[in-house]
Amino acid sequence: MSSRSCQMTLFINRGKSDDDLIIPLNDSLSGTLSMDFMCAKTTVMASPFLTEDRFWLNNKEQSFENKRLQNCLKEVRNRANPKLPEIKWKIAICSENNFPTAAGLASSAAGYACLVSALAALYEIDGDISDIARRGSGSACRSMYGGWVRWCKGLRDDGVDSIAKQIASVEHWPEIRVLILVVNDSRKKYSSTDGMKRTVETSEFLKYRVQNVVPLRIEAITSAIKEKDFNSFARITMEDSNQFHAVCLDTFPPCIYMNDTSHLIVELVHAYNEHKGTNKVAYTFDAGPNACLYLLEQEVYEFLSLVNYIFPPASGQKDYIRGIPVIEEQLPKESSLHIEPQRSGLLKYIIHTKLGDGPQRLYNPEAHLLNETGVPKK
Amino acid sequence: MSSRSCQMTLFINRGKSDDDLIIPLNDSLSGTLSMDFMCAKTTVMASPFLTEDRFWLNNKEQSFENKRLQNCLKEVRNRANPKLPEIKWKIAICSENNFPTAAGLASSAAGYACLVSALAALYEIDGDISDIARRGSGSACRSMYGGWVRWCKGLRDDGVDSIAKQIASVEHWPEIRVLILVVNDSRKKYSSTDGMKRTVETSEFLKYRVQNVVPLRIEAITSAIKEKDFNSFARITMEDSNQFHAVCLDTFPPCIYMNDTSHLIVELVHAYNEHKGTNKVAYTFDAGPNACLYLLEQEVYEFLSLVNYIFPPASGQKDYIRGIPVIEEQLPKESSLHIEPQRSGLLKYIIHTKLGDGPQRLYNPEAHLLNETGVPKK
Repeated sequence: MSSRSCQMTLFINRGKSDDDLIIPLNDSLSGTLSMDFMCAKTTVMASPFLTEDRFWLNNKEQSFENKRLQNCLKEVRNRANPKLPEIKWKIAICSENNFPTAAGLASSAAGYACLVSALAALYEIDGDISDIARRGSGSACRSMYGGWVRWCKGLRDDGVDSIAKQIASVEHWPEIRVLILVVNDSRKKYSSTDGMKRTVETSEFLKYRVQNVVPLRIEAITSAIKEKDFNSFARITMEDSNQFHAVCLDTFPPCIYMNDTSHLIVELVHAYNEHKGTNKVAYTFDAGPNACLYLLEQEVYEFLSLVNYIFPPASGQKDYIRGIPVIEEQLPKESSLHIEPQRSGLLKYIIHTKLGDGPQRLYNPEAHLLNETGVPKK
Repeated sequence: MSSRSCQMTLFINRGKSDDDLIIPLNDSLSGTLSMDFMCAKTTVMASPFLTEDRFWLNNKEQSFENKRLQNCLKEVRNRANPKLPEIKWKIAICSENNFPTAAGLASSAAGYACLVSALAALYEIDGDISDIARRGSGSACRSMYGGWVRWCKGLRDDGVDSIAKQIASVEHWPEIRVLILVVNDSRKKYSSTDGMKRTVETSEFLKYRVQNVVPLRIEAITSAIKEKDFNSFARITMEDSNQFHAVCLDTFPPCIYMNDTSHLIVELVHAYNEHKGTNKVAYTFDAGPNACLYLLEQEVYEFLSLVNYIFPPASGQKDYIRGIPVIEEQLPKESSLHIEPQRSGLLKYIIHTKLGDGPQRLYNPEAHLLNETGVPKK
């Protein structure tokens, strides 16, 4: 049983409240990216002939005792028909993703969404299973649906109502494009889980944000998406990204995820929007320095030219702009904005992509990652 | 009539509320630095023989129509004895400061404190004049006193009760030392006045901070200073610096004053404090990337060695560590912290100084910056 699933990106970042059940402090909202350029792929296999549970991730065998994996597996089996023989069989799991793990692009969300989708197919479970994916990696619950997805924090202590809901499909707003600017970064990486725990313990602003700011923004951005009001969508997205990082900075000791290049991207987006007289591009940053930018298709050529001019690739770099092909005309080498080109190599590369449809089951046996004995083909 | 005055550094940053009167949103607190290494110096002269008002700053003549200068001058004359003949005479003003203007070290606070002190001496005014200095540059009001100074925001619309008060003298805690790490920065400079205005207009966090956080912290840090409780003093100072910058980041578009080097300094201080098991060093950042660090005299040698190891000077650089001389033994080239030495030249230089006594009148005619005809000697 194989599935693939996509990476997603945040508009409204969440705060964590329960570490084990992974119940968030606030609702959050994100777009699910297309699987054309970035995706996770998982094959699961159950068989009476397997003698032990095994798990491979990106061609390396992992411990099956991983708590989050165990939580997902246990919950999927709970919901399956107890008469299903597969429930008692040992299983093999093989996962891989095609985006660089070191790039800080939250591959675990895609990975767990994919894993839970495959397990649900294996054990023949229907209905919403985003709460199961959530127990693997919080953000994975949103990746269970395509398009625009809201993670409702829920009210119950057991997390059963902490689930994802699609608020609009990809087709609703097909012109939306996404640019991911992967930033070169030499600074120490923080664990976002540890950081968020410290934020909950020490930030004076977090509670205010969760109670007074996020609920209004979630409603406002949902309306903006439904009305396809890009200007408002962009403003809320940027404001909320900034406020999320402000809360991280208000943590003691502070959590700093953005770096100087991230802030240059922020300046560039604001300068571009000011030049255009309205918000044409929106940035959002997760727990790392990489920028995720939203814009309409009609804006891609001009804005991408500007990014290419201001952030030139390292010398000799190939494939600087990846994903949806851009017309390889001579990109303009001038800018009407008062921002000087930076030294080359501040960005590793750029991914040009769009939103997608969420996890997909793969029926073609050639797509399976495991051979008939439950061992990776590679 | 000549005075000199010192630079000061913030613990609790203020938010601005009134632009013209310069009345702040919240109380703030700072230490006034010694004039041994950084100071402003001003000579004012009134004479019936002067035919026009003139003003020189750092050897360049400036417009006398400067609104802030006019506000200060008007207010000083209002309080003088109206029978004093000097009030009707034209005046010459000459100011200079010995710290690099481009370093972002808030020379206007020292400058206006110095100017208002000199004008007060000229027009024979007694009593508190910190509210007058405030109208030149908000922070200047705190620089009117030495040691530890609180700027009480006041309650009146006309700002008459928005004044500075000394909460402890230098002698109260003589072991306090200050390290100013002047950071190399290539990014665009923001005007802190414009930035603060935008913060007042757009930050959701600012109001919460002003009403709920700052009042408690001001009391807590005042107690910590009075009790010479360095651990608490340091924690509040760092928390508040971080929260001030969090509010700047929560502004739309965001104001970013700290850069990657600033954040490396933050990491270094936290790593050092963790290693020591208590807060031995505190950082605070104003509207720029430079760090102002507080520590006790006994900690200077070890911590400065560490800074010198982790932030090596640019090759060939002289006078990297300025101010109070440090014993020039071979500074240790190893560190017990898990922070790698950075590439050289991230810091321009380091100033090692302490707190001081506030503005001082200079009686020696050789110290005067103007000659007998009211023109700069230089």
